[in-house]
Amino acid sequence: MPNPSTSPTLGVGMVGYAFMGAAHSQGWRSVGRAFDLPLSPVMAAVCGRDRAKATAAADKLGWAATETDWRALIARDDVQLVDICSPGDSHAEIAIAALEAGKHVLCEKPLANTVAEAEAMVAAAEAARERGQLAMVGFNYRRVPALALARKLVADGRIGALRHVRAVYLQDWGADPELKLVWRLRKELAGSGALGDLGAHVVDLTQHLTGELITGVSAHTETFVKERELPDGSGFGQVTVDDAALFSGRLTSGALASFEVSRFATGRKNALRVELNGSRGSLAFDLERLNELEFYDNDQPASEGGFRRILVTEPDHPFLEGWWPPGHGLGYEHTFAHQARDLVQAIADGTQPRPSFADGLQVQRVLAAIEESAEKNAVHTPVPAAE
Amino acid sequence: MPNPSTSPTLGVGMVGYAFMGAAHSQGWRSVGRAFDLPLSPVMAAVCGRDRAKATAAADKLGWAATETDWRALIARDDVQLVDICSPGDSHAEIAIAALEAGKHVLCEKPLANTVAEAEAMVAAAEAARERGQLAMVGFNYRRVPALALARKLVADGRIGALRHVRAVYLQDWGADPELKLVWRLRKELAGSGALGDLGAHVVDLTQHLTGELITGVSAHTETFVKERELPDGSGFGQVTVDDAALFSGRLTSGALASFEVSRFATGRKNALRVELNGSRGSLAFDLERLNELEFYDNDQPASEGGFRRILVTEPDHPFLEGWWPPGHGLGYEHTFAHQARDLVQAIADGTQPRPSFADGLQVQRVLAAIEESAEKNAVHTPVPAAE
Amino acid sequence: MPNPSTSPTLGVGMVGYAFMGAAHSQGWRSVGRAFDLPLSPVMAAVCGRDRAKATAAADKLGWAATETDWRALIARDDVQLVDICSPGDSHAEIAIAALEAGKHVLCEKPLANTVAEAEAMVAAAEAARERGQLAMVGFNYRRVPALALARKLVADGRIGALRHVRAVYLQDWGADPELKLVWRLRKELAGSGALGDLGAHVVDLTQHLTGELITGVSAHTETFVKERELPDGSGFGQVTVDDAALFSGRLTSGALASFEVSRFATGRKNALRVELNGSRGSLAFDLERLNELEFYDNDQPASEGGFRRILVTEPDHPFLEGWWPPGHGLGYEHTFAHQARDLVQAIADGTQPRPSFADGLQVQRVLAAIEESAEKNAVHTPVPAAE
Amino acid sequence: MPNPSTSPTLGVGMVGYAFMGAAHSQGWRSVGRAFDLPLSPVMAAVCGRDRAKATAAADKLGWAATETDWRALIARDDVQLVDICSPGDSHAEIAIAALEAGKHVLCEKPLANTVAEAEAMVAAAEAARERGQLAMVGFNYRRVPALALARKLVADGRIGALRHVRAVYLQDWGADPELKLVWRLRKELAGSGALGDLGAHVVDLTQHLTGELITGVSAHTETFVKERELPDGSGFGQVTVDDAALFSGRLTSGALASFEVSRFATGRKNALRVELNGSRGSLAFDLERLNELEFYDNDQPASEGGFRRILVTEPDHPFLEGWWPPGHGLGYEHTFAHQARDLVQAIADGTQPRPSFADGLQVQRVLAAIEESAEKNAVHTPVPAAE
Repeated sequence: MPNPSTSPTLGVGMVGYAFMGAAHSQGWRSVGRAFDLPLSPVMAAVCGRDRAKATAAADKLGWAATETDWRALIARDDVQLVDICSPGDSHAEIAIAALEAGKHVLCEKPLANTVAEAEAMVAAAEAARERGQLAMVGFNYRRVPALALARKLVADGRIGALRHVRAVYLQDWGADPELKLVWRLRKELAGSGALGDLGAHVVDLTQHLTGELITGVSAHTETFVKERELPDGSGFGQVTVDDAALFSGRLTSGALASFEVSRFATGRKNALRVELNGSRGSLAFDLERLNELEFYDNDQPASEGGFRRILVTEPDHPFLEGWWPPGHGLGYEHTFAHQARDLVQAIADGTQPRPSFADGLQVQRVLAAIEESAEKNAVHTPVPAAE
Repeated sequence: MPNPSTSPTLGVGMVGYAFMGAAHSQGWRSVGRAFDLPLSPVMAAVCGRDRAKATAAADKLGWAATETDWRALIARDDVQLVDICSPGDSHAEIAIAALEAGKHVLCEKPLANTVAEAEAMVAAAEAARERGQLAMVGFNYRRVPALALARKLVADGRIGALRHVRAVYLQDWGADPELKLVWRLRKELAGSGALGDLGAHVVDLTQHLTGELITGVSAHTETFVKERELPDGSGFGQVTVDDAALFSGRLTSGALASFEVSRFATGRKNALRVELNGSRGSLAFDLERLNELEFYDNDQPASEGGFRRILVTEPDHPFLEGWWPPGHGLGYEHTFAHQARDLVQAIADGTQPRPSFADGLQVQRVLAAIEESAEKNAVHTPVPAAE
Repeated sequence: MPNPSTSPTLGVGMVGYAFMGAAHSQGWRSVGRAFDLPLSPVMAAVCGRDRAKATAAADKLGWAATETDWRALIARDDVQLVDICSPGDSHAEIAIAALEAGKHVLCEKPLANTVAEAEAMVAAAEAARERGQLAMVGFNYRRVPALALARKLVADGRIGALRHVRAVYLQDWGADPELKLVWRLRKELAGSGALGDLGAHVVDLTQHLTGELITGVSAHTETFVKERELPDGSGFGQVTVDDAALFSGRLTSGALASFEVSRFATGRKNALRVELNGSRGSLAFDLERLNELEFYDNDQPASEGGFRRILVTEPDHPFLEGWWPPGHGLGYEHTFAHQARDLVQAIADGTQPRPSFADGLQVQRVLAAIEESAEKNAVHTPVPAAE
Repeated sequence: MPNPSTSPTLGVGMVGYAFMGAAHSQGWRSVGRAFDLPLSPVMAAVCGRDRAKATAAADKLGWAATETDWRALIARDDVQLVDICSPGDSHAEIAIAALEAGKHVLCEKPLANTVAEAEAMVAAAEAARERGQLAMVGFNYRRVPALALARKLVADGRIGALRHVRAVYLQDWGADPELKLVWRLRKELAGSGALGDLGAHVVDLTQHLTGELITGVSAHTETFVKERELPDGSGFGQVTVDDAALFSGRLTSGALASFEVSRFATGRKNALRVELNGSRGSLAFDLERLNELEFYDNDQPASEGGFRRILVTEPDHPFLEGWWPPGHGLGYEHTFAHQARDLVQAIADGTQPRPSFADGLQVQRVLAAIEESAEKNAVHTPVPAAE
């Protein structure tokens, strides 16, 4: 006997089908199998400019239909949520159009390539909110269970008064001397280099985990390899984005924060590491060991104290009710299912999902302040407050 | 435009929908999205005795139809592969019937509760093989990428002459004093305790990684908590399975191997750890950090030597071509997608998938020798050779 | 102005000056500088058969005088304590003579090469105890601060009812194919191989940490490389000791214990690892990281639980009052200073230092049971109780 | 028979006997027992203002005589080397006087409290060098074996072109709310807080390991707790030094470097961590695990690559020829014996020991630039080059 579906559906239309599109697809495919949802996501259509490639991707990733124009995707009746996985320079136009067309929007990070675009997106999201449409930006790492647990411990006061944050996001693919001048190395396409790609994550995560804002920064950026062969082998071109950025500053509470992002940290493949030190305790996390959170509880006597490796796979840990027994770890892609779960729930409830576009704008403002400081001899540069 | 499917299909019917059923479902759901397959798996039907529960599970896990009798499932025309995720005491009957009905079979581990059952299953599989049906037993940990890499390094001679294996599989849920007398603690249902549940994994893995057989064992088993409250609260009953087992022995080459499995290792949630020491190098793995393999290469000078933490997430690592960029880790469930990939490929190719039922029988023989040794004062007990 | 010494002295005479002699010397040299002692140890004389070598060693290691006959050493008026660092086959004769001559004795482990010798030594120690002389055997690892803390936590009931011990001591120098047939590989000189050298440590440590005895064992031993070149290059000879031993058994409480010792664990340089699992918690230690103890406290909720890396360098940790601020780690040699501290204190107090010769005899009995089991097909072999 | 000493002696006189004095004493006591030295250090005299306390310290630490005036210590005929372990504000006066009196000098870090003092000390050292006296500053961490190995690997080109240094030195004793206003928290005595105490180490170490200089810095400093109870309980006073400092900058080659030092990093007891990323490889070290060095060798294929935990205890590792077999770790204090070994050798050879006073001055200049940047809104501030 065939199985009837038991919940109302939520049609999803996705723009882009590369790395992020594949990861989002796995999220949409899995979320309803792991969690009880008030709405059943349906993978309605995917959009890409090249019909043959888009069709192949749809078939591969499990989307029911294909579009080659994002406007057509937005216009589809079977699409209530537009999931934007295309490059950053397209985010503003698509997101604003989708919101204006009465669709909910999930937009990959960074929200936009410029503060001005991000501001327009926030305005569009606020207007849409009035009409019942919701918008979310895809900082997926907030929903690594270990980081969600970290947020909970901080919010519960378990680390006390915050003193230090140190966050790095280190990769090493840039260190390959054979690397070609791919689009990610060209400012006109990518906006920035490690800063927008990796820095956006550490900025959002720091603000999310601490519940504070970065109020000002001092920064250095660097491009180590200034010229690379063109992808078509026709010659060489300039690398116009940063390979690495160092920045440091203060949070709302006065805590000190240091940051480093790089594509030249040989041997570090995906090392998003964050440590928080507070008066009552400390937390440490490394994305290369994403099922673990280290917690130092300063309420314990020093003679028994130590960083405790919590395996964040217990049934009462965040998001774990949907998955496996203790000790059976999750992977990178699960963050997209968790993001989908919370977004679907917010849509059903009519509440604002987080991170909102306003949260994404705040991250852009920090990135802009970093770029300004780096151009001005690292002088401490305030981050404008949201009005 | 709707997307046509491009490959011939392979209808899957699954028996059972608990923990293993959910994990297998995630494997079937994901495998074709991650890998290019010669046959497209279709989740045709799931079988469970209680119609309401089975239907709910089908809906939740994404199976198109429901059956309440496994014989009906086997008889379905849209089912070419029967995936057995029910308890061990049902394996033999279902698997033999499915093979005789002309279906391929994937059977969860352990292959059976007794050597006699396992022998009958091997006979059925061999007969079916003549007719073109294939059978595989589900030791999923062989397909953790880090362990597949370990197998490759051993097969390439990188650790040289094997001297030692030490393998443990430690959990701690038995240490909960409130734990009720669940079915896993009753011999008539579960066959054995930690031994069959956890011991089967370390035995199969050791034989797989080394390419050798365990030729004899000396064993101790123990039941720490001998009486527990009945699940319905009506009184207390005897625990009739082992809580833990220690065993040691020799492999074909004369290497020494030590093993320990337990449900009372407080703080160890899913610690399947295996270490191999050889004349040219050593390997170490811990399932709680499943994306990592440690390798000591003895060809390097001692002054530069050290256990090297390989993050097994590179594109040329086993199974990684289907997933994410370096450093973006996989989870427990991916092993089921990998198992599905290799089984589908073998069916398309008409080759024997491994581990075969014969491999599963060999594991049963080792488990039987362990039980015999434990009853006979730990005396070294040979494992009968396959005829 | 010269500094007067403020405590009465304790003259020490040491037999042997190789690795253990050097380590003991560093202990005697440092102990009074780190700790406040009731008696000031004086490094009176060292004894070795070859006068030139012994004199060079005395000069190097800081002993005031040299003897070439251990009987002369014992006879010296300025020696009140004889510290025996010579090979195991000499222990009984020297220790008994020293005790009979009215000297205190510190004897390196293993206490003796045979149970019979060890029994004679215990008898001599008991007789001497009546006359006020004290005897101690040198299982120095009891006095690694992290292990002393582990003992304290166990004694305080922090791990509850013991379920498992797993202890290994792994080295790899035997894996060198060029290794010559050194004295440690010849039974007539060394008594046994990895078993006496490394196994004695894990047996003593397990009994010490748990406060229980090993009541019986099942064992396998192995000699991987059976023939080696003679040190003088004149040909080849048989290796007559074990390269590795596996043994498992039960403790007084019924807890299961597994052990492995090897000189062929490639990449493991000095990996004395011990883990205890109990109903209330677990402890784990690795000598390669000797300043750390891992503790899992099962009294904490599972969602906050995790193995806690205690850096055992706090002022209120065992032995740390004599050393450096938190986080400034100690080394291997400090165990000898700690051993010296406790022995000097016991001598001043007239109390029995531990481990006593009786403790050393118990270890010999376990080792003898292991050898017997290994010869008898691994059958479980009881350890005779002390009468 | 008494043992004659076989080498000419080198009389040492030490000023100060607190933590550093105790650590240096252990170095002088041990160095000749572990290493073959061309000169035998003799612990001639220790100096402290309070005669009773100084005499007690001399007796405890093993110095033959006591002085209460450092000028008297310098004047002693049996003192050829003055070892300065007193607070930083006394370094310049004592060191210059000792050098002018024809003595060799070892001066604890930081070299001085100001650049001007450090410059005067360099001038005195250069003049003394002409007359045959040698001066060294005590950055002992250069002589942790793992860091000495790191330096060797860098110098051998094993990490290639340097891209990043990230170095932190984290402690947590400042996080104790009960901490009194000790001298280390008062600028007039301590010069600075975490910056001079911990920052001097990371600056020296970075320059030493890389063989490069820090050319400019951008810095933030912070005092988290601004008022503390006076030690005598008579009221409260201002904390006038930094609790933490963040700084970042560039090295000679253009590599980026980030630094953080803090006394408020709860749970980090002595976490001096340094990581270097280069085009051919990376190195990572943590003082809390001082016997280990992690090395990523980018010459290996990525599929076999990984950070390798080198246990720096092999006989051919730096300084290990004097100590124990592989895997038998050293402790914090051994760095002082290694420093003593190299200084004694340099004195015997008449060569300049490193780090020289000029090296110490360079560190002071970096610290001064950090303070200047922190006062000037973190603007990038060049470090003046040595003339």
